[in-house]
Amino acid sequence: MATKKSTARSGKTKPVILITNDDGVTAPGISNLVEAVKDLGKIVVVAPDKPQSGMGHAITIGQPLRLQRVHNFGEIEAYSCTGTPVDCVKLAVDKVLHRKPDLCLSGINHGANHSINVIYSGTMSAAVEAAIESIPSAGFSLLDHSIEADFEGARIFARQVVEKMLSTKLDKHTVLNVNIPALPANLLKGIKICRQAYAKYVEDFIARQDPHGRHYYWLTGEFVNFDKGKDTDVWALANGYVSVVPVQFDLTHYEQKKKLEKSWK
Amino acid sequence: MATKKSTARSGKTKPVILITNDDGVTAPGISNLVEAVKDLGKIVVVAPDKPQSGMGHAITIGQPLRLQRVHNFGEIEAYSCTGTPVDCVKLAVDKVLHRKPDLCLSGINHGANHSINVIYSGTMSAAVEAAIESIPSAGFSLLDHSIEADFEGARIFARQVVEKMLSTKLDKHTVLNVNIPALPANLLKGIKICRQAYAKYVEDFIARQDPHGRHYYWLTGEFVNFDKGKDTDVWALANGYVSVVPVQFDLTHYEQKKKLEKSWK
Repeated sequence: MATKKSTARSGKTKPVILITNDDGVTAPGISNLVEAVKDLGKIVVVAPDKPQSGMGHAITIGQPLRLQRVHNFGEIEAYSCTGTPVDCVKLAVDKVLHRKPDLCLSGINHGANHSINVIYSGTMSAAVEAAIESIPSAGFSLLDHSIEADFEGARIFARQVVEKMLSTKLDKHTVLNVNIPALPANLLKGIKICRQAYAKYVEDFIARQDPHGRHYYWLTGEFVNFDKGKDTDVWALANGYVSVVPVQFDLTHYEQKKKLEKSWK
Repeated sequence: MATKKSTARSGKTKPVILITNDDGVTAPGISNLVEAVKDLGKIVVVAPDKPQSGMGHAITIGQPLRLQRVHNFGEIEAYSCTGTPVDCVKLAVDKVLHRKPDLCLSGINHGANHSINVIYSGTMSAAVEAAIESIPSAGFSLLDHSIEADFEGARIFARQVVEKMLSTKLDKHTVLNVNIPALPANLLKGIKICRQAYAKYVEDFIARQDPHGRHYYWLTGEFVNFDKGKDTDVWALANGYVSVVPVQFDLTHYEQKKKLEKSWK
């Protein structure tokens, strides 16, 4: 990887921007993301051929992957991939681009990826994978699951974030988790840099019997926010701001490391 | 969830220990983990019905899950589940135990989950899921992929870690990533509390043609450690120690948050 050339953001050449998502290559969200940033660089799309929500950082080890050229973004080079969002990033870098892109964007997801959702989200895991590979990245999510969601505000702020990313000297491992409230564009108050709220899902599986009398369980869950902080993504979103949380992939809990070093002596 | 009773580690009742893995309920690793700790509490096993390596924090949203009672752990209550390792933890808490266990253990994984592997690992994601649900947890991995691996050292140290966990006042969100070198038990030097090494996989997909002439790609990758620190899990393992990395699920990059707050004003 180290031998591959990168044009970086030298200003001399157009930045190469890889776009992926987890809702699949035909989802409205990814078209809106392409639309929002297509004049900011050379865009290449590699996205799953089917919905991959909740896939987290899954990779495909036991099966082969396939890529297929698709034409749903006009002139833009685009492929559907049989793998997970993380597979898409890996395969795009190794077999489509043959180099690291300057930026990787993921989304726009249909539904929130704030707080603990970051850990289950295929959208965000694709962005994290890019950052592991030293490609600055951002995942975008609109707080509206509907296939007919209004992406206008999301497009405006996704573009704003990407412009900022291209004009700022970013750490190569940068990952931004960007969530946009489901509000008309003119009601969005601006960008707020936040921390991940402490929240979780309280699970409640629906238990039913299939037509053959066998039991099955279907995951549901109620989102509960335990965090009263006004510096969190959940607070920002509830108050009309676009939340931006910088994300890390060093999962070491340093505070607890210190404690264990003492107490486990 | 908050209304469910927890006996905690009051010393009055046996702790309830949930055991899962990502190699599947029939893998030798999980039998070895059960064997190592079965007299330390009331053990309940809920593990995937098939290998789920590399599933990361994936959850099953679009399909139902099934549970089946299995009898491969003698007297111990055990179930196979059609879902991912994270699904197993969620379903175990909600529909098998009907309460939070006092501890959740995952593994023993066949193969390393040190450094960046933590993010792809189903073993570790199950442990992280437990910690999100306020259940202290640990994931165990032996640095040997073989089905015939020698688990003696892993059993001894898994037991040691669990005894320490049961006798220490742990934060409810504790997750420990425990890796054990593939060495005879008498050559293991002891436990070392570590940080996650900065390492990654350099991808190289194998490109081939199927019998029908269509291209496919298969993920391979070379592990590269960029981290020269002697406080990392990779260093500890290479030097004969059992590595223990405390893991967090607040993914906020606080240092970068500060920088962005200034530079994006």
